[in-house]
Amino acid sequence: MKGVILSTNPDVRIVDITHEVDPQDVREGAFLVEEYYRYFEKGTIHIAVVDPTVGSDRKPIVFSKDGYFFIGPDNGLFTLLYDDNVRAYAIENRRFMLKEISATFHGRDIFAPAAAYLSSGVHPSMFGSVVQDPVRLPGLLPTVKDNVLHGEVARFDRFGNAITNISGVIIQDFADGRPITITLRDMSFSTIHKSYYEGEVVSLIGSAGCLEFGLFMGNLREKMGLKKGDLVTITIL
Amino acid sequence: MKGVILSTNPDVRIVDITHEVDPQDVREGAFLVEEYYRYFEKGTIHIAVVDPTVGSDRKPIVFSKDGYFFIGPDNGLFTLLYDDNVRAYAIENRRFMLKEISATFHGRDIFAPAAAYLSSGVHPSMFGSVVQDPVRLPGLLPTVKDNVLHGEVARFDRFGNAITNISGVIIQDFADGRPITITLRDMSFSTIHKSYYEGEVVSLIGSAGCLEFGLFMGNLREKMGLKKGDLVTITIL
Amino acid sequence: MKGVILSTNPDVRIVDITHEVDPQDVREGAFLVEEYYRYFEKGTIHIAVVDPTVGSDRKPIVFSKDGYFFIGPDNGLFTLLYDDNVRAYAIENRRFMLKEISATFHGRDIFAPAAAYLSSGVHPSMFGSVVQDPVRLPGLLPTVKDNVLHGEVARFDRFGNAITNISGVIIQDFADGRPITITLRDMSFSTIHKSYYEGEVVSLIGSAGCLEFGLFMGNLREKMGLKKGDLVTITIL
Repeated sequence: MKGVILSTNPDVRIVDITHEVDPQDVREGAFLVEEYYRYFEKGTIHIAVVDPTVGSDRKPIVFSKDGYFFIGPDNGLFTLLYDDNVRAYAIENRRFMLKEISATFHGRDIFAPAAAYLSSGVHPSMFGSVVQDPVRLPGLLPTVKDNVLHGEVARFDRFGNAITNISGVIIQDFADGRPITITLRDMSFSTIHKSYYEGEVVSLIGSAGCLEFGLFMGNLREKMGLKKGDLVTITIL
Repeated sequence: MKGVILSTNPDVRIVDITHEVDPQDVREGAFLVEEYYRYFEKGTIHIAVVDPTVGSDRKPIVFSKDGYFFIGPDNGLFTLLYDDNVRAYAIENRRFMLKEISATFHGRDIFAPAAAYLSSGVHPSMFGSVVQDPVRLPGLLPTVKDNVLHGEVARFDRFGNAITNISGVIIQDFADGRPITITLRDMSFSTIHKSYYEGEVVSLIGSAGCLEFGLFMGNLREKMGLKKGDLVTITIL
Repeated sequence: MKGVILSTNPDVRIVDITHEVDPQDVREGAFLVEEYYRYFEKGTIHIAVVDPTVGSDRKPIVFSKDGYFFIGPDNGLFTLLYDDNVRAYAIENRRFMLKEISATFHGRDIFAPAAAYLSSGVHPSMFGSVVQDPVRLPGLLPTVKDNVLHGEVARFDRFGNAITNISGVIIQDFADGRPITITLRDMSFSTIHKSYYEGEVVSLIGSAGCLEFGLFMGNLREKMGLKKGDLVTITIL
């Protein structure tokens, strides 16, 4: 992909954000895409490729949001970025692809050249027609039922911390100053800590702005056998 | 290596292609070197270091092919690139090396500075004398015997797909329109699929242009316990 | 971190040295920081983040040494770099941080912006006050007792070679030409080899300038079940 990008536009700066999304886990990718993009300069082009249905009729798409650009498969990977202002375009114009398109690596053959052309000033609308209803994954956001907020472990970092899909802002709105109990498996927490340094097992608002759980100087994921999708609840006492 | 390169030529763009060749597996490296280089712009310098005999009398070499440059150990890593037009030079000129040469990391002490000087305009012939017979690994290409084409699993990708050394072009030439059966372990295939999306276990021509085997949304390598070198046959019915 | 750096100074060149320090292992980080920096050009800014006590009152610091700059937590990570000429400054000036500081990722919120400002010409002293006694880890260097030099396995590389904290220079000074015996677990060596190519299990002075142990075409760490901290002795016969 980098060879293809630099062949078209040698002045591009390329940064790898992560290659550690679990294979085929579009859902995990959807959380990460939303988390990282804003730390880059406006104008940055984000290519995201978690693409189990590559080679099917799922569309390659390009869109802009808040001054950033995004390129990838239309399989729900960008669910958390869509709002009423987002207009996604299918990448259909063969002029902006490699000559030979493999059935298994659109990252190299379609997304990378699209990014290079975008960086050279091609407008998203020049790639193809508007995609009316881009695919959205259900259930990415937490829900409230009978005074209990239900979320889940969205992903893990390399330290084994369990990062949920429950943002600190949502917790504040939900709790509204009232005392809460947070549960994950058979652990419960009445406090949101400030740092891992404060306890053995802690719950805190992590660098992604979301509730997470960690073990000081250890790996909570391994110790507890946690899995992505594990239920996390917040109950108002 | 990057520090050394940038110290000599700060304007160089550096791209990591892979750090995931199995340790000491020159054979796997030989397949990869051949696969990737053409996706970069002409003039690109490829440094390849799979170098189990570093510190022995195996030579460091540099050569050009099709407008690209290659630097690495003369241990067969570049076997698939050699043709009658390739003239390899030993890197002998101490002027183009670090002052202190370790016995275990020629990547840093010899290959990286050679790349930096090459990028600054030094011609391959200035590094040293011509290497008359660069080392070639045997058996990298498939063979035909009694109407059966014999190849092997050359490597795996991170999704557990098994990539063979049998190119789609070779299959076409061999089959010449006749029906074929492809076998790997106790699996057999009468069809080459277009994408992973089409079946559970599929055989297809992957992004490297070679026959590969994969499991949709799964890891075939793990499921079947596949190994590099596993026999793959194609029989004309 | 890269997004933050490039947002402030888009002209910076960023190189990843390693992401493979064991989680929370400040000691391993301390060995690596000392090993790599000198292969980069003077003026290079090294950010090192192994930071288990992030969010506590451990200070973020910046200092220069030999024309290089270093940024990271004051937790001993830079122990091997400190000498009488080093003056470390706490990073206190909010102007050089992101607006929101998470309690868990100072790499992104404090160290990355500090590096970007440093690269733009801000002097270390502008970040904050002098840190009088930066934290130093004990026991990083080998010791001599009763004519025996005691060191340890400091870290492993990806090939499973065991790299010690005993430099070749220290061995020369210690042995002073006399014959020695080197031991690790139940292995003993009377020779320091020149390359892995010379034997099955070898001890040699590796690319870091330190004694290391390896298995030709194999993984000594796995074969012997070696651990970081394993005792290595050198005895004068």
